[in-house]
Parts: sequence; structure tokens; C-alpha cells
Amino acid sequence: MSIEPELKVTGSQVWPNPEVVDDLARLRQVAPLTHCITNMVVTNFTANVLLAAGASPAMVVTIEEVADFVSIAQALLINVGTITTIDARVMLKAAATAQLTGTPWVLDPVAAGALKFRTEIVNELIKFKPSVIRGNASEILAVSGFGGGGKGVDSTASSFAALHAAGQLALMTGAVVALSGEVDYITDGKEVISVPGGHEIMTKVTGVGCSLGALIAAFLPVTPTPLRAAAAASVIFAAAGENAFKLARGTGSFSVEFLDQLSTIGNQG
Amino acid sequence: MSIEPELKVTGSQVWPNPEVVDDLARLRQVAPLTHCITNMVVTNFTANVLLAAGASPAMVVTIEEVADFVSIAQALLINVGTITTIDARVMLKAAATAQLTGTPWVLDPVAAGALKFRTEIVNELIKFKPSVIRGNASEILAVSGFGGGGKGVDSTASSFAALHAAGQLALMTGAVVALSGEVDYITDGKEVISVPGGHEIMTKVTGVGCSLGALIAAFLPVTPTPLRAAAAASVIFAAAGENAFKLARGTGSFSVEFLDQLSTIGNQG
Amino acid sequence: MSIEPELKVTGSQVWPNPEVVDDLARLRQVAPLTHCITNMVVTNFTANVLLAAGASPAMVVTIEEVADFVSIAQALLINVGTITTIDARVMLKAAATAQLTGTPWVLDPVAAGALKFRTEIVNELIKFKPSVIRGNASEILAVSGFGGGGKGVDSTASSFAALHAAGQLALMTGAVVALSGEVDYITDGKEVISVPGGHEIMTKVTGVGCSLGALIAAFLPVTPTPLRAAAAASVIFAAAGENAFKLARGTGSFSVEFLDQLSTIGNQG
Repeated sequence: MSIEPELKVTGSQVWPNPEVVDDLARLRQVAPLTHCITNMVVTNFTANVLLAAGASPAMVVTIEEVADFVSIAQALLINVGTITTIDARVMLKAAATAQLTGTPWVLDPVAAGALKFRTEIVNELIKFKPSVIRGNASEILAVSGFGGGGKGVDSTASSFAALHAAGQLALMTGAVVALSGEVDYITDGKEVISVPGGHEIMTKVTGVGCSLGALIAAFLPVTPTPLRAAAAASVIFAAAGENAFKLARGTGSFSVEFLDQLSTIGNQG
Repeated sequence: MSIEPELKVTGSQVWPNPEVVDDLARLRQVAPLTHCITNMVVTNFTANVLLAAGASPAMVVTIEEVADFVSIAQALLINVGTITTIDARVMLKAAATAQLTGTPWVLDPVAAGALKFRTEIVNELIKFKPSVIRGNASEILAVSGFGGGGKGVDSTASSFAALHAAGQLALMTGAVVALSGEVDYITDGKEVISVPGGHEIMTKVTGVGCSLGALIAAFLPVTPTPLRAAAAASVIFAAAGENAFKLARGTGSFSVEFLDQLSTIGNQG
Repeated sequence: MSIEPELKVTGSQVWPNPEVVDDLARLRQVAPLTHCITNMVVTNFTANVLLAAGASPAMVVTIEEVADFVSIAQALLINVGTITTIDARVMLKAAATAQLTGTPWVLDPVAAGALKFRTEIVNELIKFKPSVIRGNASEILAVSGFGGGGKGVDSTASSFAALHAAGQLALMTGAVVALSGEVDYITDGKEVISVPGGHEIMTKVTGVGCSLGALIAAFLPVTPTPLRAAAAASVIFAAAGENAFKLARGTGSFSVEFLDQLSTIGNQG
């Protein structure tokens, strides 16, 4: 397999990038119904992030309802963070339905590579053509087959090192890959958008990365490409995180300020 | 079936309504053990709302324990927001036990009408005679059989339009219906108490509606009627929400201020 | 059975106890991967407490992965707060694995004594030799076989009254017992460390006790003895709680300030 080895950053975005400003305005107008099947640690924070930004979250997680709700929803997030035997069936059915109904969806392969069961399920899920795969360096390395394996949910590889793997994963799957790290990289295997900013404290509050996946999903129905959806969400997170850090006195107030920023960004003036 | 068509508002309550002040004092004295079987998005916020107000929350959700715990508890909430196959059995057993032991209980039929499985379970649950049914306009319309069906958890019908349905549902089931919206309406099919106030931001934080259902449950054992329990909780929520909004800088700080208000309302002076 | 009846407090610790200061520095350096199998009400708060203090939380809860992850993790918490039929199997497998791999672990027997199913599972779990058992007076009395039985998750017995039971439980099981209350007592059946401080408001925020169990687990791999791990976590919680209360305006802001305190304690100056 010969794949373009010299994947280069083709653009960099920060708030207030005009496209992102437009995309956020559209998100708030449409309030896309975003179906989240996510891990039990971050359900509340994820819903609050989506509400703050202007989307309409809903979590429907039972096998009897999941296909119907994917059909109603405008976007879907599947995050395997605390996957169970039962969840796996639900996630597979959700992903299969999304492919069938054309519901755009995001896969967040939390801790893939570190644990066998979820890695297998993630590999199955990918076959249902997610629009975006979001993860940290370890996860993207693992899912792309370029090795890795982290110590659980934290990234142990730098996001730049994983950029090559991200590009290949994008080419192999047709998904945009959103690689989270000190700098975020978003790629479809050809273009690479870098999103600097944010702050390290974002790794000290649970659910920030997971809710980024959810916000990317929410942007999918209101943006022309998955690349732009992932960029919009990442740019907004970076700005909100940076501003929130300036106002925070610790990780508790950071969470609060972060939601405040998300709910007011772009509203001033 | 002939039902009174001209259901009219018979009273309006705002904090500090003397009855509500008394009811809250009694809640804090008794600290009713309130058994919550609720959705996985709002467990934490619901427990914190109950603790802030002065109740004693507990969540026991396994089939082996649920009947015993309903018998111990002073009140029960069943919220079907993220119902699963397993949850459905637990909820039915809880409701059946509550009817048997006389434990007063609240049903929150989240997204009923929009999804078949939960709608069927809700219809089963209602047979076990909840003291109060709390929902938004779409949910109350769906449960009453007067049509509707929302886009998931958000209400797409105005609460005033659903008032007639609420009254009929109350008469059909014997439950008080607490209809949440811009103005809350609480009715037993004869009386209608309106509770104005609150703020739209309350719909931008996940779990506010769900935790209102829990607080209504907590008031049931310390108030003379379910109508008064529902009114007390709604009045306190409206006041806390209104005051919290004035102090909030966004949805994150709103949540914090809301809990602060609940934990201090009536304490000053 | 003849057991020393006159168990006496042999030491008292408050922040900045030099050992605790050292232990916290080591925790932050190592960032121990702490596997939490805990109740669905407190997952988010528990993860945020561990992150704030400097540990690395992860929640892996499916039977297919739990043994592998216990082997990777540096510490384990099992909290039975919302145990289900499925959870029970997962917890037993986790505990069995922990004993086998020498992974130190904490058992939090929430509401043991009050409900039969969890009490039986807790009795099974104890056979796998937890390093620490953390609970309130009612729970420790129940687990030790000295009677009790609370009204759910709140303690209905004073922690001093339960100290004797704690000492016996420690001697019987080989676990250190961390007894939470107005004053915390930590004992291995011979020594008793008392940890005063904290504030009653800590009982008005859900998950404070549960996350203390998690922080004790996180300290196990970085302290020479379970006694010292439990003391370190308790001392830090007492100080953070006391300081947070001074800054709080209610239970909502208390939570925020508490996390802020945990994330900055020892950093100043």
C-alpha cells in the first residue's frame, strides 16, 4: 500500500474564523437533534456542552429504540468509553442504521488499542462509515493499525507523531480524522487543518474530549463537509478553553467557565 | 366520554407563597428518603438538587433490591429518559411495589410519544397509579392520547395548548399532572394552579426538568395533597431559576447558582 | 472471639501534615491509573476529583475487559452504590483479579446492611482482600456484623460509636477501615488515626464520600501502607472541604470550590 508520506498542514484556524462564526450561527438556528450514545462518566457534561453551544442533545440507549431514534436524529455520536456487552449491540445497530439513513455520525474510540473487546467493536463500527473519527494520538494510532496502545484514556503519544497515522486512517476509511492534542489536527487525508489554542487544564476535567466528539457530531448537519464540522467544533473548544482558563481558579471553576464560554461565545457585541 | 372542556386556572403561586414556605420547612425537617430511578444523564444533578433542597436521595436500580427499597423509601421517582430493556423491568416492579405499599410516586414520561418502547412502558406504569405525572407539553399530549410526539426530549407544543390534555389525563388516571413550560400548570382535573417565573435558561441545562420531577416526589410525603407537592416544587424551582439567572454569566454558572439558590432559599433573614 | 476492646486514637492528622504533603507530591508525579467501578450517580464527580488531585481515573465496566484493565491499573475502587445484577459479576471478577495481580483496592460498601443483595455481594467481595474498606458508621457496623442498617446511603450512627466495629473489621479482614463521619477514623485494628475538619456541607453534595474512596485507592500505589493512603486522602478532603466551605455560597458553589481546592492544594507558595 503506498500512501502519501508527506502530509502537511494546509491551514490553521482560530476563533473568530469567519467560517466557524457562520457555522456556529447556523448550529444555533437549527439546534440539531444530536443523538449521543456515550460513556456513563460524561453523559451530563456532554449534554450540557451541546446545550451551551446551541444543539439539542438526546441519549437513547436501548436496543428497542435506537434505530428509530437514529432515524429521527440529525446526527449521532458513538463513544465507547464505558462500553458494555449490551452497549456494543446498541452501538452496532445505531451505526448500521446511521449508514442506512444517511445520518452523519462521529466515532470516538476511547482507549481503543488498550483493551481487546472495545478494539474489536471499534473495528466493526468503522465499517459503517463514520463521518468523523475523533481521538487522541494513542487511539488514532491504534485504530489506524500503526500501533500504540495507551494507558487507558490518556494519550501517551504526541498528536504530531500521530498525524501521519491520522491521514492514512482518513484515506482508508473515508472518515475525517480529528486528532486531539496540544494542537488539534483535522484531516481527510489530503488537507490538514491545525487548531492551536486551548489549554492543558482541559485534560484535567473529565469529558472535555468526549464532548468535543459530540459537538463535532452536532455540527455535521449544518456544515458543508465533515472537515469543516470538526474544525468548527475544535476552534470553538480551543477558544472557550483558553478564555475559561483565564477566569478559572482550579479545575472546578474551569468546567463552569468553559460552559459559560460555550454558551456566550459569539454573542458579545 | 364527556369531560369538562373549560378547564380554567384557579390559582397562581409564586415564592414566598406561605403554604410553599411551610412545605419546604417540613421537607427540610423530615428529609424524605426519595428513591430515584432516573436517566443516566441526570443522576448526579438530580441527587444534588434533592440534597440542596433538603431531601435525602437514593438510587437503587437492580431488580433484586428495588422492591425492598421502594418499601423503605418515603417517595419514588420513575423517569424513563434513558430506559433500557433491563430498566423497564425494574421500573415496573418499582411502580407495582409503590402501589402495594402506598409509597407516593412521580412518573416522568420523558420523550413518550416519540418512541414506541418507552410509550408502551409508560402506559404500563400509569396503571400502577402515580401520584403525579410530570412532563412537557409534547409528553403530556402523548401520554393523554391527545396526539403530539416531540422531537425527543424537548417540548414542541406550548404548555397552555396542552393544559386541556393535562386535565383529561388527570381525570382519567387520578394523578395530578404537572405540565412544565414557560408557565407551569398543575392540575388534578378540577383545580389548575399556574406557576409563572423561572427562566428560559432552565431549558439549556440538562436535568432541570427531570430534577423537578424528583423534587415533586420528595414533597409528596410532607404535603397534604399531590397538587400541593407539585406546586411547592414548581414554585421553588421558578424562584431559584429566576434568581440564579440574575447571578449567572452563562449556562455553567447558572447550574451552580441554581443549586446555591435551592440550598439557601428561605434561609435568609 | 476475644478482641481488644479499648481501641484508642493513636494519632491525629491535619493538613499540612508533612507525610501527607509528601504523599500528595508523589501522587501528582506518578498520576496513578485508578480503575473505578463505581455508582452511576458519581462517575463524573469521582473522575473530576481524581483528576483535580493529580491521579488518572478510568472506568472500565464490562466483563470482557475488566480483568485486563485491573491488571493494567495501579489501583482499583469498587463502590456498590447502584449495583446491578451485571455489575455484581463485573465487581467480583475485578476483585478476584486484583487479589491475583496484587493490585491494591478499596471497597466502598454503600448502603450495605440496608439491602440484602448488595450485602451478600459485599461479603463475597471482602474475601478478595481489599486494602481498604471505606464507609460511614452504618455501613461499617453492617459489614463488620455488629448490626446497624441505615436508611439508605446516609449514616444513622455516629462514627465514634462505630469505631470499635471498625477495629474489629480491620482485624478480621486484614483491611484498613476508613470510617467517615464528622471526624474520620482510620484504623488497621491497632493504630487509629483521627482526621478532624471538613464540614457538614460535604454531606449535601452527592459523591463526596464516594470520591474519597476513589482518592484513597489512588494513594495506595504511592504510599507505604494502606493506613497512610487512607489518611492522606482523608486529610486532603478535610482541608479542601473546610476551605471550600469558606468560599461557597451554597451547595452548588461548594462543589466547584472543592474541586478548585483539590487541584491547587499544596501548590501555593
